[in-house]
Amino acid sequence: MNELNHFDAEGKAIMVDVSEKKITAREAVASGKIFVGEEIFKIIQNGNSKKGDVLGVARVAGIMAAKKTAEIIPLCHILPITHCKIDFELLEKDFSVKVISTVKISGKTGVEMEALHSAIVALLTIYDMCKAVSKSMIISDIRLEKKSGGKSGGYDLRACW
Amino acid sequence: MNELNHFDAEGKAIMVDVSEKKITAREAVASGKIFVGEEIFKIIQNGNSKKGDVLGVARVAGIMAAKKTAEIIPLCHILPITHCKIDFELLEKDFSVKVISTVKISGKTGVEMEALHSAIVALLTIYDMCKAVSKSMIISDIRLEKKSGGKSGGYDLRACW
Amino acid sequence: MNELNHFDAEGKAIMVDVSEKKITAREAVASGKIFVGEEIFKIIQNGNSKKGDVLGVARVAGIMAAKKTAEIIPLCHILPITHCKIDFELLEKDFSVKVISTVKISGKTGVEMEALHSAIVALLTIYDMCKAVSKSMIISDIRLEKKSGGKSGGYDLRACW
Amino acid sequence: MNELNHFDAEGKAIMVDVSEKKITAREAVASGKIFVGEEIFKIIQNGNSKKGDVLGVARVAGIMAAKKTAEIIPLCHILPITHCKIDFELLEKDFSVKVISTVKISGKTGVEMEALHSAIVALLTIYDMCKAVSKSMIISDIRLEKKSGGKSGGYDLRACW
Amino acid sequence: MNELNHFDAEGKAIMVDVSEKKITAREAVASGKIFVGEEIFKIIQNGNSKKGDVLGVARVAGIMAAKKTAEIIPLCHILPITHCKIDFELLEKDFSVKVISTVKISGKTGVEMEALHSAIVALLTIYDMCKAVSKSMIISDIRLEKKSGGKSGGYDLRACW
Amino acid sequence: MNELNHFDAEGKAIMVDVSEKKITAREAVASGKIFVGEEIFKIIQNGNSKKGDVLGVARVAGIMAAKKTAEIIPLCHILPITHCKIDFELLEKDFSVKVISTVKISGKTGVEMEALHSAIVALLTIYDMCKAVSKSMIISDIRLEKKSGGKSGGYDLRACW
Repeated sequence: MNELNHFDAEGKAIMVDVSEKKITAREAVASGKIFVGEEIFKIIQNGNSKKGDVLGVARVAGIMAAKKTAEIIPLCHILPITHCKIDFELLEKDFSVKVISTVKISGKTGVEMEALHSAIVALLTIYDMCKAVSKSMIISDIRLEKKSGGKSGGYDLRACW
Repeated sequence: MNELNHFDAEGKAIMVDVSEKKITAREAVASGKIFVGEEIFKIIQNGNSKKGDVLGVARVAGIMAAKKTAEIIPLCHILPITHCKIDFELLEKDFSVKVISTVKISGKTGVEMEALHSAIVALLTIYDMCKAVSKSMIISDIRLEKKSGGKSGGYDLRACW
Repeated sequence: MNELNHFDAEGKAIMVDVSEKKITAREAVASGKIFVGEEIFKIIQNGNSKKGDVLGVARVAGIMAAKKTAEIIPLCHILPITHCKIDFELLEKDFSVKVISTVKISGKTGVEMEALHSAIVALLTIYDMCKAVSKSMIISDIRLEKKSGGKSGGYDLRACW
Repeated sequence: MNELNHFDAEGKAIMVDVSEKKITAREAVASGKIFVGEEIFKIIQNGNSKKGDVLGVARVAGIMAAKKTAEIIPLCHILPITHCKIDFELLEKDFSVKVISTVKISGKTGVEMEALHSAIVALLTIYDMCKAVSKSMIISDIRLEKKSGGKSGGYDLRACW
Repeated sequence: MNELNHFDAEGKAIMVDVSEKKITAREAVASGKIFVGEEIFKIIQNGNSKKGDVLGVARVAGIMAAKKTAEIIPLCHILPITHCKIDFELLEKDFSVKVISTVKISGKTGVEMEALHSAIVALLTIYDMCKAVSKSMIISDIRLEKKSGGKSGGYDLRACW
Repeated sequence: MNELNHFDAEGKAIMVDVSEKKITAREAVASGKIFVGEEIFKIIQNGNSKKGDVLGVARVAGIMAAKKTAEIIPLCHILPITHCKIDFELLEKDFSVKVISTVKISGKTGVEMEALHSAIVALLTIYDMCKAVSKSMIISDIRLEKKSGGKSGGYDLRACW
């Protein structure tokens, strides 16, 4: 269990061999946050108005990123995902935007990286569109919320420290 | 100042017009962290050994991602960057890996997004390579450390909340 | 029937969930035209000669574009297509070139977008190669000719106005 | 003038040599239409509402496509464009949506193909998002409206037949 | 047998129709060499040391290239490969580095091109990283070593001249 | 001189900093061969006929690959090349096809990798299109023929062993 399967016995990077794995229905959910400060928070909250739909653009970016995961993360497999959905929550208490990305596939390996990648790109797109107002936004708390399907079965996040 | 320049007067998304801006030397530095827990931390620390060079692969992924920023972030300009460097720090106190990405260009607009994107992808690649050991790693504290060059001049991170 | 399935109940863009759909043999045919004017028409007609094989290059562009559809159209699924064929007809009566693109897959969703995208890119490539002679070419009449396979079954174009 | 400069003297395809050309401010405007029929027209008109923002997604797709032109059109140069803007007009008289794409660069060659490509991809994205309602939409009238800058100077569309 | 199946009866390029082919386990192995001269050979041999891990970077490049084969080779099918492994041998006798790339898939067509493409890109990456020392390196002997699976069955390299 | 500039003082891979370098006219020429055997040689020789234009497709692939070099070779800079030309020679004496690729740029760094990459992809495309006839073709002798421009000035190939 304490081995990295992305390296062979001699420590050389490989794309893990999933040839023998079964095709099963798999799903992964990832989340993350961007702390934007009060001013930007208000602007985003008024989105879809004349100020511009920040979250609409970020959602498209996140979905497109899910499809590009294998091109960005060196050892990921090409996965023809069957579903991607990006949700946002506006958290006024700490002026943050939370993103939740859900990805599905019927395949030989899981879509954790696709969910994480699309969540991160959605947040980064928010940063890009709001950076003219302030550059001190912080992206944080990106994590895998849950996964299902595959041999290793379900997973629910428990902090390990 | 409280306007998002990625939207026009009617709130429609645009790629900002930088045609009239001057070509100047620009630089941006971004950082971020992944909390990996003790077990994975030890494995990474022993990298370059038989366990596999996690950080070496993540560094390549980060540099390649810097070049793909305009393809991933919808409203970013294509920027032929002139330099990209990725550094890692192993922080034993909280079993985290810190990434610092430095990007340069001689161009009409800054490379903040390139620095942030490459930092994030380096961290995400660490997640990918270590997720067989634990899926509860958390990516956090991604921020722009500083930028220089361009009309708006220098910037040093000050938290805004 | 009057709902856009690329948006969820709240009007947010999604990649449609096709996880539960069956894998079936699917095919789509799309067509389109470029009106090039007499001078360019003659040059294309003499292709494969010293003047250069305009249609040969456009055909390669169209096939490659079929493979890139999911990267270009935000909500399209990645589809490992099993066949792509591009045919051209030279229509002397109106000095136009007609393209017909045929795409096949054995998959969970159809290849209409792949057929349309490859047809359009083939025409756009003709424009690019001939624009030194005239920039007033017009691309028109891009439509789905037919599709087969999948739950919704066959389709044959009938104008709806 | 009646030569295709994308082919050499022997008729072999080349990427035209623009090494000696001057860097000047250049702009191109392209337009096109999609005939969607009454039902879809009403849905798009009510966009930004619960029905989903079809034009918002198409706009993002068009801007991203402008940046990918050299990857899709075989003989185009890589052009780090400095501006891209996509506008839509809803034409109730024929239930069509018109797209107008404006692209700028400070470079050695023009951005006609970028303007045309982004216009086409915006229309194709509308097709994709509305095809669940009807597959008989038609994309037409894609043309270069005008260009400025460069040695060949300005251009205003005049039909050539 | 003496026909090129990438062209139809009229000699027009097509993406071969593999719709009716069976999904089987397929594997391909390709190899190639770069002759680097004594000075560079010593530097590579001391890799993983302060001189920099040339082969580590080349390995990542090769794996990523395997995934991009269909984007680079015009008539290749998109193949979601299930495994990729790149091995290097340092051959002191002629100061060359040999690469061996192994690719697997469970699919309708073989992965010869993926194996060859990843081998070639690994070698080209070595060239890139070492060209500051000498530009006279030569890449040679790129060949398909073997393939298995599919209707045409196994193959073992025998020179044909 | 015996240092690899793609690694920093600690041996970590970097994208070399070319910020301070001057923009000059640069050119590179690379060549390579594919040994195809007599049968395939005859088929290629009859190209442009009904057998299909193998070299025409390979030429387009090579030009497009020149533009994708920075996406494939990890540490290469994004270079908006100003010219690419691919020539072929049919060498009956050894039944080989020779490719010569010429690339130009006005930039801060050279285009050797672009020339080599486009030459290699052109050869690999020939392999792909002819592999139905024989899989024992061999790609060899890929080398930089010459370069000009830049601080390091001209270069003419002299074998180093």
